[in-house]
Amino acid sequence: MKGNIVVGQSGGPTAVINSSLAGVFTGAKKLGVKKIYGMVHGIQGFLNENLVDLSEQIKDEADVELLKRTPSAFLGSCRYKLPKIEGNEETYDKIFEILDKYDIECLFYIGGNDSMDTIKMLSDYGASKGKNQRFIGVPKTIDNDLPITDHCPGYGSAAKYIAASLKEIIRDNESFGVEKPTVTVVEIMGRHAGWLTAAAALAKGEDCSGADMICLPEVTFDMDKFIGKVKELAEKKSSVVLAISEGIKLEDGRFVCELGDGSDYVDAFGHKQLSGAAVVVANKIAAATGLKTRAIEFSTLQRAATHLASMTDISEAFQVGYAAVNAAEDGKTGMMIIIERKGQDPYQSGIGIYDIHAIANVERSVPLEWITEDGTQLSKEYIKYARPLIMGELQPLMVNGLPRHLVRK
Amino acid sequence: MKGNIVVGQSGGPTAVINSSLAGVFTGAKKLGVKKIYGMVHGIQGFLNENLVDLSEQIKDEADVELLKRTPSAFLGSCRYKLPKIEGNEETYDKIFEILDKYDIECLFYIGGNDSMDTIKMLSDYGASKGKNQRFIGVPKTIDNDLPITDHCPGYGSAAKYIAASLKEIIRDNESFGVEKPTVTVVEIMGRHAGWLTAAAALAKGEDCSGADMICLPEVTFDMDKFIGKVKELAEKKSSVVLAISEGIKLEDGRFVCELGDGSDYVDAFGHKQLSGAAVVVANKIAAATGLKTRAIEFSTLQRAATHLASMTDISEAFQVGYAAVNAAEDGKTGMMIIIERKGQDPYQSGIGIYDIHAIANVERSVPLEWITEDGTQLSKEYIKYARPLIMGELQPLMVNGLPRHLVRK
Repeated sequence: MKGNIVVGQSGGPTAVINSSLAGVFTGAKKLGVKKIYGMVHGIQGFLNENLVDLSEQIKDEADVELLKRTPSAFLGSCRYKLPKIEGNEETYDKIFEILDKYDIECLFYIGGNDSMDTIKMLSDYGASKGKNQRFIGVPKTIDNDLPITDHCPGYGSAAKYIAASLKEIIRDNESFGVEKPTVTVVEIMGRHAGWLTAAAALAKGEDCSGADMICLPEVTFDMDKFIGKVKELAEKKSSVVLAISEGIKLEDGRFVCELGDGSDYVDAFGHKQLSGAAVVVANKIAAATGLKTRAIEFSTLQRAATHLASMTDISEAFQVGYAAVNAAEDGKTGMMIIIERKGQDPYQSGIGIYDIHAIANVERSVPLEWITEDGTQLSKEYIKYARPLIMGELQPLMVNGLPRHLVRK
Repeated sequence: MKGNIVVGQSGGPTAVINSSLAGVFTGAKKLGVKKIYGMVHGIQGFLNENLVDLSEQIKDEADVELLKRTPSAFLGSCRYKLPKIEGNEETYDKIFEILDKYDIECLFYIGGNDSMDTIKMLSDYGASKGKNQRFIGVPKTIDNDLPITDHCPGYGSAAKYIAASLKEIIRDNESFGVEKPTVTVVEIMGRHAGWLTAAAALAKGEDCSGADMICLPEVTFDMDKFIGKVKELAEKKSSVVLAISEGIKLEDGRFVCELGDGSDYVDAFGHKQLSGAAVVVANKIAAATGLKTRAIEFSTLQRAATHLASMTDISEAFQVGYAAVNAAEDGKTGMMIIIERKGQDPYQSGIGIYDIHAIANVERSVPLEWITEDGTQLSKEYIKYARPLIMGELQPLMVNGLPRHLVRK
């Protein structure tokens, strides 16, 4: 590669999004790329020429290791959506002007569905104008909802955090026994796809009875039936723990959280901001049963808890970043790096690449056949799929009793 | 010791309450105690003769290690408060009957303020009736509000979880920068004492700007002044993170959470159930500033996250349990084991013992001189006090990608 490269991070951060950045950086260093630019706050920052020289940020191999252990987007993220090309050519021309100005040959964007749309638009526009720059997507999303790839970097670590924390919550919930029966409702992220909530199923094992019900957005939420089942459960056991997705919906299409004081705030991508489904459900249960209830939201911790990241996930996140640079070196553009499952027992994965047009703007849900018939648990097939993704740990570097992070200068 | 012993766990569990149980068990085994009974669900279970033989539960040294790494009360906990002696002699007589029946010479109770009251009452009643049994309290509380002891087992691990999670939350909150300024309000446990919330101050360091304000129940909460400061902060920085105690109160004595939909549920110890202070504050901030706000509660995770426990804490929790058995062997009764700070740099602690009458029903708050003049940060003296308590880690035993726990048979 003769020119320079630029890499950006976009959308909700994950525990391992910086491991992909470390992969891009390491891959580019190996290839002898002159300048490795980072966009500060994604394509939005890029439009303002807000760039850093990553070699000045990541000084040595110890910094690379720290970067892998640093949560949230090291470069800063954005939720800026590129406008459609027609009528907005000046935005696209500006991006290519900046690419030319900084002699940037390849642009890498680490993100989810919306970010892959950015890669698609830029590569389409470049192709239509006969430009030479290449554009490669690096998958990242705790939501695990990108198609084609077996799974998405970020998901394994979020799943590990959710399952481990749920085990601790269940143990805590059991502590008072029949003296103080408690129903705890745990709310897990995921607007439309239930992958994250499904991870609650991983908590179950020899030492944990698991969540009593797991409710995904893929299954219509029937409040009366649900409350009826909670009543039955509470008659049989003193500790009931329920895992629900923030995105569960009633048959009439309303989100459960809208039954509370849910706001109508809509973000730049047209997503409705959701919160409070657990509070709504916990209040309904309390009113129906008189039992003590508790609502717990994992909130941003589920995407930021790098201290409990999965080694498999960190490693694959690094690999997709590394592979992206090599794909660009090979002349690829308008594509996203994907993870392929090569073996199940023992688990093995490989890295591939796929046309971005088949990926951008497509959301993959949890297959309905992986949800049990009553809609409240996951099948063995899901466990088989997800278990390998949460395996292994990468020890944080502890300083003063706390995990150390790398900070952008 | 010729007779048997019994040990119970009481009150809110902690990440290391089972390490103290492991200490009692190991100490008793070393002394050759015949039967080591465990009360299932504390003194309440004991009154129903709900006992287990701990040697059948903890089979070998690997089980002891697993027990140290198991959150929540292994034996089950209770919030049962012994009635006052006058007029309730039959309850006390029943306890001593059961002690005699099982040839129990010493009773150990792992708990906080209310549990120490149980030790006081039982030892007072036994003394008044010329009984031979001994009663020793083993300190445990994430609230860190027991007097005399330098600190309480359970606090260090909760503080470590709070500070580490807050660092991750702050990183996440910074990810979108000026494009999407966000004010996050983190609610931390602690009805009357601010020790847990103070732990937010430990997050600050070379790689973290820390919480922008830390509000403890020791300082009257002035909503208008607070909102004014948040406005000032939000003008200067795009990410504002505030740590508040669940127990912050207005000048008129009302809890801040009561301004929301706070319920009036009162537990068996007369404690009002609190929740939702962060939601109340976040809504007020949103209304006053128009900024995006988020409320996060650590909820039960802060007392159950054994996966991130402090090695110092686990070790001291073990030691106080172990020492309790040896104190009873030496004929002590009506006392609680305490931790004494022997050295600061390097930190060293020693184990002592103290009259339970000076401890039961006394709550220790954060010294006001450790809170900065404006009431929103902690002083260096607090950091000096708390930092050693969060140092070190004890690796969980990971099975199938998750921390393994020991389960009561």
